[in-house]
Amino acid sequence: MSAIAIDVMGGDFGPSVTVPASLDALQRHPDLQLHLVGDRPHIEEILQDCAGDRALLQRLELVHSESCVSDDDRPVTVLRGKRNSSMYLAVDQVRSGKAAACVSAGNTGALLLTGRHLLRMLPGIRKPAIIATIPVPALDRNCYLLDVGATVHSDGEQLFQFGLMGAVVVASLTGRKCPRVGLLNIGAEEYKGSREIHDAARLFERSGALEYVGFIEGDRLFSGDADVLVCDGFAGNLTIKSSAGVVHAVEQLIHQVAAADPDRSSMAAPLLDAIRQKINPARFNGASLLGLQGIIVKSHGNADREAFTWAIDQAIKEVRNNVPVLIADRIASAFQTTSQTNQE
Amino acid sequence: MSAIAIDVMGGDFGPSVTVPASLDALQRHPDLQLHLVGDRPHIEEILQDCAGDRALLQRLELVHSESCVSDDDRPVTVLRGKRNSSMYLAVDQVRSGKAAACVSAGNTGALLLTGRHLLRMLPGIRKPAIIATIPVPALDRNCYLLDVGATVHSDGEQLFQFGLMGAVVVASLTGRKCPRVGLLNIGAEEYKGSREIHDAARLFERSGALEYVGFIEGDRLFSGDADVLVCDGFAGNLTIKSSAGVVHAVEQLIHQVAAADPDRSSMAAPLLDAIRQKINPARFNGASLLGLQGIIVKSHGNADREAFTWAIDQAIKEVRNNVPVLIADRIASAFQTTSQTNQE
Repeated sequence: MSAIAIDVMGGDFGPSVTVPASLDALQRHPDLQLHLVGDRPHIEEILQDCAGDRALLQRLELVHSESCVSDDDRPVTVLRGKRNSSMYLAVDQVRSGKAAACVSAGNTGALLLTGRHLLRMLPGIRKPAIIATIPVPALDRNCYLLDVGATVHSDGEQLFQFGLMGAVVVASLTGRKCPRVGLLNIGAEEYKGSREIHDAARLFERSGALEYVGFIEGDRLFSGDADVLVCDGFAGNLTIKSSAGVVHAVEQLIHQVAAADPDRSSMAAPLLDAIRQKINPARFNGASLLGLQGIIVKSHGNADREAFTWAIDQAIKEVRNNVPVLIADRIASAFQTTSQTNQE
Repeated sequence: MSAIAIDVMGGDFGPSVTVPASLDALQRHPDLQLHLVGDRPHIEEILQDCAGDRALLQRLELVHSESCVSDDDRPVTVLRGKRNSSMYLAVDQVRSGKAAACVSAGNTGALLLTGRHLLRMLPGIRKPAIIATIPVPALDRNCYLLDVGATVHSDGEQLFQFGLMGAVVVASLTGRKCPRVGLLNIGAEEYKGSREIHDAARLFERSGALEYVGFIEGDRLFSGDADVLVCDGFAGNLTIKSSAGVVHAVEQLIHQVAAADPDRSSMAAPLLDAIRQKINPARFNGASLLGLQGIIVKSHGNADREAFTWAIDQAIKEVRNNVPVLIADRIASAFQTTSQTNQE
């Protein structure tokens, strides 16, 4: 397998999380090679502190970078003054073919801009999208939501393309052959919602290339009614963030209820654990940037060591399945079908 | 105090909930008068079954209606074929001055259309909005979100007007003199979000008529950072529904965790109770339709007897504070300030 480039300076904890997580990933995948991009002395120091199998180091390559992109930087900063940053150089590893994918926990907007600049969009794809994992605790499975913030608004055709891309990724991640695709909307009735959503619904209905299941409302998000849920980046970002807000409020409440009566504290720990394991959207790490000619996986900024390795795992799966090529094929065939239908 | 009209046929449970709830409201408010609009024989039957103080009936008036609007009806149905429905006649009580407000648990779209048709918009207000209550459990208070579904998209000026209307209502409901108003957005940085949100932000910053606190992200929704949160109807509807979806998923998880170990079941009941009391957005009943020349309070369709009386309580508060007049004044003075600023 080819190498994966890691932007080790990204995220709230930087190398102290990303370097140990990278070693864990090497341990787990005997054919994996990693290129750690970041401040070389800092990385070497952490590597020395890490106990464990020294043989793993032979599958590590260090790429020194002079600067890093912070969360407060405007996205455009990375192209204007930070081409020597760990983020830029990690994505550039994919552009140059030295790595098959890149994983970063850094500034999402900057990562997206760097990806578009260095890797370019796939032919036919009009806008990139970020796909996030949504837990379906009752069924012990996941569904996937896109876009969660690559763009603000999208028209009907862009939403339709998000559905095609999402179905490819979900089939590749989960093995479900024909994922069910729904449109996130404010009502199930066909007249509800925006013009963009109605346009997208018509494209899904006509295409036949997907199992389209119609409109899904916000309160059915965690019900598993669809495998892929499509919306624009504003709606998607608001949805995952407000869901995380509710989970946080529930956690606070559990602490309050447990504190009021010591007998109850025996339940608080397993319950908080179950919530963290099964519901907290922040746990579901590894959001892919879709629509680019290359694989970029965005980890949450606050990912811990375990969560960051999940993001690396996701990159590995996408490399093995060659997701960008699958997306390009799906887009090409969907457009062929549409133009055939129009000619008939 | 003038009367309040109740659409008794609306909601999932109709008169079996709305009639007993109306009697509870009469009990609680000795100067309240209610006009129950609905199927007279049905209402009389339920009134006979209700035990309690018969003197309350003297403050009840029955208004017979021939039909009712169902949740499956398209909103326009109420104007085309159902002008003899309980919903239409209840709103018409406000138009004719027989009632000072109307409460309905019926079809939201139909109620909004009937309100706009019979009561008309307040001068200067471009679009109506529905305001919902959001719990802030850590601070044991509420914040208020609008619009949660009266319109799909809104431009910057409409969002600004939602902020003005929301501040008036929240001051009137809570006694907070100068509620803090925020814009729900996908990032706190000023460049994040849509053009509409940036336009609204500029209007809030310039106006000086409000305590504007900037952008609030979805994960801070339940944190109490603002008293009034402004967004378009698509975002607001999605936010409250997906929040309700998370709460439901957590409730299911609590049942699962409790079932796995009988010792834990002692905590499950108080915890589920705390969640229902403090977090579940569905509990916070009584969403007002703002921007009309009259008071309409929309109860959740699935409101129980207690929840429906909260909606009546909200209507009483708005009548006492004369909310539509306060909104009209606030809008007029905001526009005066803006045009003065422009002339300077």
